Amino acid sequence: MTSLSSVTPYDNMSPVTRAAYRAKAAAADLAPLPRSAKDDALLAIADALEVRTSEIVEANAVDIERAREAGTSDAIVDRLTLTPERVRAIAADVRQVAALPDPVGEVVRGSTLPNGIDLRQVRVPLGVVGIIYEARPNVTVDGAALCLKSGNAVLLRGSSSAYASNTALVKVIRDAVGGSGLPADAVQLVPGESRDSVQELMRARGMVDVLIPRGGASLIRTVVEGSTVPVIETGTGNCHVYVDAATDLDMAVDILLNSKAQRPSVCNAAETLLVHRDVADAFLPRALDALAEAGVTVHGDERVVGYADRTKATIVPATAEDWETEYLSYDIAAAVVESLDAAVAHIRLWSSGHTEAIVTTSQAAARRFTQLVDSTTVAVNASTRFTDGGEFGFGAEIGISTQKLHARGPMGLPELTSTKYIVTGDGHTR
Amino acid sequence: MTSLSSVTPYDNMSPVTRAAYRAKAAAADLAPLPRSAKDDALLAIADALEVRTSEIVEANAVDIERAREAGTSDAIVDRLTLTPERVRAIAADVRQVAALPDPVGEVVRGSTLPNGIDLRQVRVPLGVVGIIYEARPNVTVDGAALCLKSGNAVLLRGSSSAYASNTALVKVIRDAVGGSGLPADAVQLVPGESRDSVQELMRARGMVDVLIPRGGASLIRTVVEGSTVPVIETGTGNCHVYVDAATDLDMAVDILLNSKAQRPSVCNAAETLLVHRDVADAFLPRALDALAEAGVTVHGDERVVGYADRTKATIVPATAEDWETEYLSYDIAAAVVESLDAAVAHIRLWSSGHTEAIVTTSQAAARRFTQLVDSTTVAVNASTRFTDGGEFGFGAEIGISTQKLHARGPMGLPELTSTKYIVTGDGHTR
Repeated sequence: MTSLSSVTPYDNMSPVTRAAYRAKAAAADLAPLPRSAKDDALLAIADALEVRTSEIVEANAVDIERAREAGTSDAIVDRLTLTPERVRAIAADVRQVAALPDPVGEVVRGSTLPNGIDLRQVRVPLGVVGIIYEARPNVTVDGAALCLKSGNAVLLRGSSSAYASNTALVKVIRDAVGGSGLPADAVQLVPGESRDSVQELMRARGMVDVLIPRGGASLIRTVVEGSTVPVIETGTGNCHVYVDAATDLDMAVDILLNSKAQRPSVCNAAETLLVHRDVADAFLPRALDALAEAGVTVHGDERVVGYADRTKATIVPATAEDWETEYLSYDIAAAVVESLDAAVAHIRLWSSGHTEAIVTTSQAAARRFTQLVDSTTVAVNASTRFTDGGEFGFGAEIGISTQKLHARGPMGLPELTSTKYIVTGDGHTR
Repeated sequence: MTSLSSVTPYDNMSPVTRAAYRAKAAAADLAPLPRSAKDDALLAIADALEVRTSEIVEANAVDIERAREAGTSDAIVDRLTLTPERVRAIAADVRQVAALPDPVGEVVRGSTLPNGIDLRQVRVPLGVVGIIYEARPNVTVDGAALCLKSGNAVLLRGSSSAYASNTALVKVIRDAVGGSGLPADAVQLVPGESRDSVQELMRARGMVDVLIPRGGASLIRTVVEGSTVPVIETGTGNCHVYVDAATDLDMAVDILLNSKAQRPSVCNAAETLLVHRDVADAFLPRALDALAEAGVTVHGDERVVGYADRTKATIVPATAEDWETEYLSYDIAAAVVESLDAAVAHIRLWSSGHTEAIVTTSQAAARRFTQLVDSTTVAVNASTRFTDGGEFGFGAEIGISTQKLHARGPMGLPELTSTKYIVTGDGHTR
C-alpha cells in the first residue's frame, strides 16, 4: 500500500504538532486495515512486554525513586509501580483486547433509497485520539491497545511523574507495532514533560479528533474548558442510592453497603444516601449501624442527625457542599426525602450524572425513577458498582463518559469509532 | 406530574443564564413525555403558525425594512423574507416532523448479563440544545420542531437581522406549546441582540448540553473555538469529484455538472474536480465545455490550463488557496492527478471532510476510494448533492455534521438524542 504520509509537510512545526501530523498520517494507513493485521500487532505488543519486562521495570524504578524523593504518598507510589507480575497482567489485557470483535466496518444502518441509491452507514475509526492521564502507567498500554484495535492512532500524554515508565512502555509498543508492518507512529508519547504540551494538544483541532482526559476533577475541568478539540468528559461520580417507601430492607442495606464500601475510591461508588421518609424509622437505624461497622462516616441532614441516639454510627451535620462532593473515601452524605420526586429533584440538582440506584419493590416507582433520573446509568435493585465496561460485557473500557454527546456511560471499542455514509449509484444525479 | 423546576434558584442570574436554567427545567419535564403529547404540541404549532400568519409577516416586515435601510443585498433580503405562502410551507414542515417516529425510548442495545442483571441502553433526549444561526427565520421553527419531537428544550439564538421575525415566531410557538400543556420554556429565544449573549451561551456548560452553529464558516469557527459547551460542527463543504482512469465519460460529465451547478450555493455542491491523467485527454475537453455552458469558471492547475486551447471554458490558474476554498458559486478548482491514491492524498490534505464522489467503472477503484477517503459521505457514481437528510430518508435535518464525534453527516432526530443505561437486578451486589 502506498503511504499517504509523504504529502505532509513537517518543517517548522513544534514537536507536539509534528507528533499530531504523524499520528494523522498513521491513522490514514490504519483505517483500512483488516482485523487480522491489527490483532497481529496487539499480540506482538503483548509478547514484547513480556520479553522486555526488565527494561520496563528498570525505567519504572527511576520514576519511583523520583516520586519517593519528592515525598509522594505510598498510595500513589503503589499506583505508579510496575512489577514483573503487573507487566504480565498488562500483557494479558492486551491479548484480551485482541480477542474482542473489531468495530470497524460494521454496517450501522443501510437501505435502498426510493431512487435506487444504496445507502450504508459504516463504522470507521475516529482517526487520532489524544489521551491525557495521570499516574498509572497501565493506561499507556490499555489506551494504545484499545485505540489500535479500533483503527485509531493515539497520542499519549501521561503524568510527568511516570515519564520514564511511559517512555519505556511506548518504545516497546512502537517497536512491536513497527515490527508487525504497521506504522509505529500509530502510538506516540506526546513529547515534553511540561504543561505546554498539554495546552498544545488541546489546541490541535483538525489534527486530533478527540481528547479523552482520565484523572482527577481538576485535570478534566482544565481540558474541558481549554480545549478546541472535541472532548469526552469522563469520570466524576457523585452517585446516589435512593431507598424508596416500598422496599426490601435487607436488600436496601446490602446495596447501600456494596455501593459505598466495596471499593470507595472508584467513580461508581455511592456518595449520597436518600431515604423516603416513610421508611426512615425502619431503615436508618439498621443502615447507619451497618455503615458504622464498615467504617463509614455519615454526613447527615437534620433528620438523619436525629437518629444519632439510635445508632453507633458517627454522624456529622451535612453542609450544602456535602451534597455535591465525590468523597472517594469512607464517607457518605445522607438525607431523608419527602417523596420519590423529591429524591429525583435532589439528584438532578446535585448529581454528577454518573449512576443512581433505587431500591424498591414498586414497579411504578422503578419506572418513574428510571424515566426521570438523567444520569448515564440508572440501577434498579442493583449496586451502583455495576457501571463498568467489564461488568457490562464490553471486554474493555477506555473510561466512563459523563457527558451526553457521542458516548455516555462506560465506553468500549464502538465508542472509539465514528461512521461514514457510502452512497452508491449508477450515475445518479438530482 | 410534579414539575421539577421548583427547586431551581433563579435570583441574581443574567437573562441568558436564567433562560438556560428554565430550559433545563423544561427539559426535565419533556424527557418522560410520550410521543402523543409531543405530536399534539407540534400540530398545535403548525395550526397556530397558519392562524397567526399576519402577525408573523408584519414582524418580518420590520426586519426587511431595517435590512433594506442597511443596504443588505437582495439575495439576503430574500432569505429573510416570510410571505404567507412561506409560512404555510413552514407549518407543513412542522406537520411532517410530527409524523416522524419518536427516537426517544428506542432500545439501542440490550442483554442479560451472566449474573442475571438486565442491561438496556435506551435513547433519551440530549436535554438542552442551543442553536446559533444566521438569517433564515425558518430555522427558528425547524429547530424548535425537531428539538421538541426529540424531547429536547431549545435555546434559539438567531441573527439580530431577523430579531423581530424570530420574536414573533417564538411567541406563536410558545403559546401553542403552553396551550398543549407542555412547558412553554421548552422553546426560548435567547434574550439580547448583542454578541454578548452568544458568548454567554457558549460558556453555559452544565446547563446547555450541545450547541449547533448553523451558518457561515466564521460563525462556526467562533463557536467551535470559544465554546466550553460541546459543539457539533456543521456545514463547510469543500466537496470533490474524482474521475477515475476507468470511467464512463457521459456519466462523469453528468455527475460533475450536477454536483457543481445544480445548486452551487449549498454545502454539498462540488468545489474541486480531480481527473486521473489517463482520461484527461478524453474527459477534460468535454467536461470543460460543459462547465463553460453552465457558466462555471475553472481554476485549473498547470495541466488543466494546458487544455485552454481545446475548450471555450474560462480557465484561470489555480493557487493553493483554490484547493481549500468553498466557492459556493459558479467556480470550480480542477487538477489532473497521477493516480487514485494521489486523488485521495489531495482530498485528505484539502477537503473539509464533507462529501467526495468517485466516477469509475472499476470495482477495485470504488472499494479503495471508499475505504481511504475520510469524509462524512463517499459517493460512488452518484452526485455529491445527495448528502442531505431529506435525500437519505431521514424526513428532517438539523444540519450536516462535519465532525466525527457524536454525529457525522446529515443529522436527523436520532442524532438529537443521547442514551442511558438501565441496570435491573434483584438485589445484585459485587
